[in-house]
Amino acid sequence: MKTITLALLGFGTVGRGVWNLLEKNGAQIADAHDLEFKIKKILVPNLTKDRGIKEAEGLFTTDFSEIENDKEIDIVIEVIGKHPSTLDYMMRSLKSGKHLVSANKHLLAREGSKLFETAEKAGKKIRFEASVCGAIPIVDLTTKSLSPNRIDRIMGIMNGTSNFILSKMAAENSSYDEVLKEAQRLGYAESDPTDDVKGMDAANKILILSSIAFHSKFDIEKVGMCGIDEITREDFERAAEQGCTIKLIASGERTEEGVKISVRPCFVKKTHPLASVGDAFNAVFVDTDCAGEMTFVGRGAGSLPTASAVIADCIDIAIHSENGDSFAYARRIREGFKQVDTTKMESGFPVIE
Amino acid sequence: MKTITLALLGFGTVGRGVWNLLEKNGAQIADAHDLEFKIKKILVPNLTKDRGIKEAEGLFTTDFSEIENDKEIDIVIEVIGKHPSTLDYMMRSLKSGKHLVSANKHLLAREGSKLFETAEKAGKKIRFEASVCGAIPIVDLTTKSLSPNRIDRIMGIMNGTSNFILSKMAAENSSYDEVLKEAQRLGYAESDPTDDVKGMDAANKILILSSIAFHSKFDIEKVGMCGIDEITREDFERAAEQGCTIKLIASGERTEEGVKISVRPCFVKKTHPLASVGDAFNAVFVDTDCAGEMTFVGRGAGSLPTASAVIADCIDIAIHSENGDSFAYARRIREGFKQVDTTKMESGFPVIE
Repeated sequence: MKTITLALLGFGTVGRGVWNLLEKNGAQIADAHDLEFKIKKILVPNLTKDRGIKEAEGLFTTDFSEIENDKEIDIVIEVIGKHPSTLDYMMRSLKSGKHLVSANKHLLAREGSKLFETAEKAGKKIRFEASVCGAIPIVDLTTKSLSPNRIDRIMGIMNGTSNFILSKMAAENSSYDEVLKEAQRLGYAESDPTDDVKGMDAANKILILSSIAFHSKFDIEKVGMCGIDEITREDFERAAEQGCTIKLIASGERTEEGVKISVRPCFVKKTHPLASVGDAFNAVFVDTDCAGEMTFVGRGAGSLPTASAVIADCIDIAIHSENGDSFAYARRIREGFKQVDTTKMESGFPVIE
Repeated sequence: MKTITLALLGFGTVGRGVWNLLEKNGAQIADAHDLEFKIKKILVPNLTKDRGIKEAEGLFTTDFSEIENDKEIDIVIEVIGKHPSTLDYMMRSLKSGKHLVSANKHLLAREGSKLFETAEKAGKKIRFEASVCGAIPIVDLTTKSLSPNRIDRIMGIMNGTSNFILSKMAAENSSYDEVLKEAQRLGYAESDPTDDVKGMDAANKILILSSIAFHSKFDIEKVGMCGIDEITREDFERAAEQGCTIKLIASGERTEEGVKISVRPCFVKKTHPLASVGDAFNAVFVDTDCAGEMTFVGRGAGSLPTASAVIADCIDIAIHSENGDSFAYARRIREGFKQVDTTKMESGFPVIE
């Protein structure tokens, strides 16, 4: 049995999920993969809060250098989210000889190349399944199982909050404002829902996915974004007249001009696999030249679903840790395709059939 | 660039798909993975047929020992299907030091353990993504990405012919016999459709998937099977009254008595992700303790979709060939769970909500 020593940066929703998942299924994972995961250090902002963990002696720390300098730690799991030091911690983890697993879509969409190159130089691995669509293993699928194919388009429903709101608006013929309030009350939307409803969250995810699907570096500044906050009941009526519903679609598409990456509400034909994806679910639709059309649906957020993606990444790293990293993103993702600027969108709803 | 030398056993629909896929996307695969695949030998029943391949000099052979004794061949791809010598060829491929990729659901469902043990002893790898649901990477997903989870149920639409017939019956209010004839005319059903419409094809697939999901050896003789050939228009009417449609569901489920594996028509609620899977598509629905519910939809058959799964397996083997095989099925799949005999089914349609 191989023991893999982990450090967690952050102990919020996802960090706690990782802890709970290993408590729950650690024995099964050990049995299936001959691997034991041990969390040795958890970086937190303070030591005063009672986090309800028994094995707390020396587990929690506020000092990142304790993790950086610990030679026993194999993998650093970054689940801090937005914090001024996050990128610095990620870079230092790689440089000090740890593999890195991150759920940080915001940083990966902006600093992905820098992180990939640092990992390559350090001879360490970087994995980020949890950064895109939670439990759906779409990063792994795109990198590996779909790689015999030319991908023509990758698109989907990548923000659960927006999808919850749009699904409710469609089902109950309610207004955006009414449903947003309910979503906030139920915990599906944050008190400031801007990132979710304006498309930024989905934009980060489709940028990361497009980079992998098209093996190219792309720029978030060229991604056109239109949110759902101006969608009206009348829009849903017009959609229904055309046999459609409205979904917030994040899309990366190969065109003659280059790759077009955008996030915007679309009229989706009710017969399309994305139309029936309701509630806070995420879904990714991939159009390929050989395997044809594929759709992957699952939970895009939440403590344990995201932790499942984090631990799958750790298993992948642990199993192949004696190898070089054949999925090295620095090598795979290069200048590649031209990106079309989509920030100046024509108005109206594109139709997806 | 690493060169991987392949031999194909069989040059039917899938074999030709593998050839065509490598012609089409070989350069892209080389670019992404630093791997070049070369097909050196193809086993065929005769050399007289013109197969329209230019590089034919010495490529085709009727003598398996030419492949068995060729030390240059890294991976044998078995796409013969039902033939009295297939199992023998598979065993000899492994014993003579080749990795094995197979699309043979019939043999894997019956002789899987024997094949896995032979691979383990030979220190070679066996992969069989193409044996279950064509292009959907469900074997890989279940083995790896979903492995942090306890799987409670894995079920789906695993036979395209039956799904084509049921979808047509539902949409057009036609009888089974009418639609079967049309399916045969369009090439969606064989002239003898028994294996497809009686559930045997789906039974093979769910047996293989259940073995992986529950890490256990199961027996095809204990799998209850009920086909679609006695479904009437009245059944569809009754389903509709309950807000359902009818789908042929292959299911492996963890129960208190043990694991229940069966194939039978079910009433599926129209809100369930499997209900909207139409045409000849396949879909797999997995219920897990941490990641929640996930659905994967794609083409379950066809030349290039199946070839995509075959080549993904070859890439996986090639990339990790210097490692031991951490997904060694012989080690992972053991006595494990008790299998409940489902061959004596209660009548009627189970309802899936």
